[in-house]
Amino acid sequence: MTSRRRATPTTGFPRPPLRKYAGTREDAARWVRDILRTQILDGAFGGLAAPRPLLPPETALAAEWGVSRNAIREAFDLLRSEGLITRVQGLGTVVTGAKLRQRIDRLEGLAESLAGHQLSVENRVLSARESTATGFVAARLSIPEGSPILFIERLRSVAGVPLSLDTTSLRPEAIDALAGADLAHEDVFRLLEDKLGARIGEAENTIEAVAADRGTARLLDIKIGAPVLLLHRLTYLADGTPFDLESVRYRGDRLTLTSVNARFPSA
Amino acid sequence: MTSRRRATPTTGFPRPPLRKYAGTREDAARWVRDILRTQILDGAFGGLAAPRPLLPPETALAAEWGVSRNAIREAFDLLRSEGLITRVQGLGTVVTGAKLRQRIDRLEGLAESLAGHQLSVENRVLSARESTATGFVAARLSIPEGSPILFIERLRSVAGVPLSLDTTSLRPEAIDALAGADLAHEDVFRLLEDKLGARIGEAENTIEAVAADRGTARLLDIKIGAPVLLLHRLTYLADGTPFDLESVRYRGDRLTLTSVNARFPSA
Repeated sequence: MTSRRRATPTTGFPRPPLRKYAGTREDAARWVRDILRTQILDGAFGGLAAPRPLLPPETALAAEWGVSRNAIREAFDLLRSEGLITRVQGLGTVVTGAKLRQRIDRLEGLAESLAGHQLSVENRVLSARESTATGFVAARLSIPEGSPILFIERLRSVAGVPLSLDTTSLRPEAIDALAGADLAHEDVFRLLEDKLGARIGEAENTIEAVAADRGTARLLDIKIGAPVLLLHRLTYLADGTPFDLESVRYRGDRLTLTSVNARFPSA
Repeated sequence: MTSRRRATPTTGFPRPPLRKYAGTREDAARWVRDILRTQILDGAFGGLAAPRPLLPPETALAAEWGVSRNAIREAFDLLRSEGLITRVQGLGTVVTGAKLRQRIDRLEGLAESLAGHQLSVENRVLSARESTATGFVAARLSIPEGSPILFIERLRSVAGVPLSLDTTSLRPEAIDALAGADLAHEDVFRLLEDKLGARIGEAENTIEAVAADRGTARLLDIKIGAPVLLLHRLTYLADGTPFDLESVRYRGDRLTLTSVNARFPSA
């Protein structure tokens, strides 16, 4: 597979020369890209906190990893095309893609997820009104078709930059319970617990990558077609009542979802 | 908020007329879009199995949900821009976006996830070779820098269409254990269990939406810039050894990741 493999391999797999990347330049570039992007997302190089996080110079990275400068340059091109880094004349390669992290294996609201950060969260309430459950929503929420529901649409920004567009359909009980609630400053989960005295149970999540449509792009301040991380979530109360049907469109360049899972969960 | 709200609202929220969608046409279009896209992803209208799954006519949907035909048409535009449906002259609106589902809260390999479907899975092994752990990979896998690792890159197709590009770095023990293994037909998790006698423990997942770079686009047969669902996964053995560091790039139009989670997990 590579002309540099050793003459006497001891395993069934081709072996690399010591301290040299064994594959082609294109392989090496993809491999460096994957390392750098994970480091960027892990908050290396200053992460979200640094005003101008910088990557090390190409020559330093090439020496550290035993690959050619061309491979590093190609990896930078790949990261640039993903919007993770940008070249600034006279300064170097600036990291633009450090992302916020939200856990999906705990049902935290955004404010809870960001509690450890010194970042401001702003919720702009685009819509909060009584609506009527269609067959589809009704089936999901286990209510009769045509039942009143509470419909909420919010645009969320973190550190002054748009992060996500959230639409939520809630069971009829929420209409009275959340009347007068401060939807601009409080998580819905927290509100349900506080105002409804409900305990939140489990949630079913579905995660997709989609292209931003015109309206979403305008509200999230991204280009039409830009990658959006789309989370659908149906949340149940602890007693098993399906309560909250939600679609969240996150800017792909601003957030990752994380979880920790077992191969064979006890549940 | 809407001129059609009732004169005597009984709650703090505006109320809709019965069986009529209360918001603006743009609201209605987004709302219909969200319902239809969830139905499409749930496999309604024939899903992955039907050769030509069709949406109901615009007029039928408008009547069913009490919205205007214009709202339905706008919703179709939104779904079209996401690549979920397409218009076929003389036939109607064809669903193109039914997606495969893979659970991330159980560490299933792809073949296991698809076990219930009548779909063929093909793995093209692009790379399977011994490589050397960089500082970054070494730290993740808890091995000394420069240790040999097993590096695997595979292109996976389902039902003859590309689905994902997977790169995997495995601890030194995997080199001998997986020598001669049939990587084109077996899941790595299953192989580790069978060949290494290891029990797989938990995994840390990070999920992003990114734009396809040139190489990824070429291999996955999508446009450069198309949405890609990117899963990073570090899998541990049951004894706590970090073993498998993986990046999977899924075609955004082909797959969703799903999970079920509790607000306050017992773990």
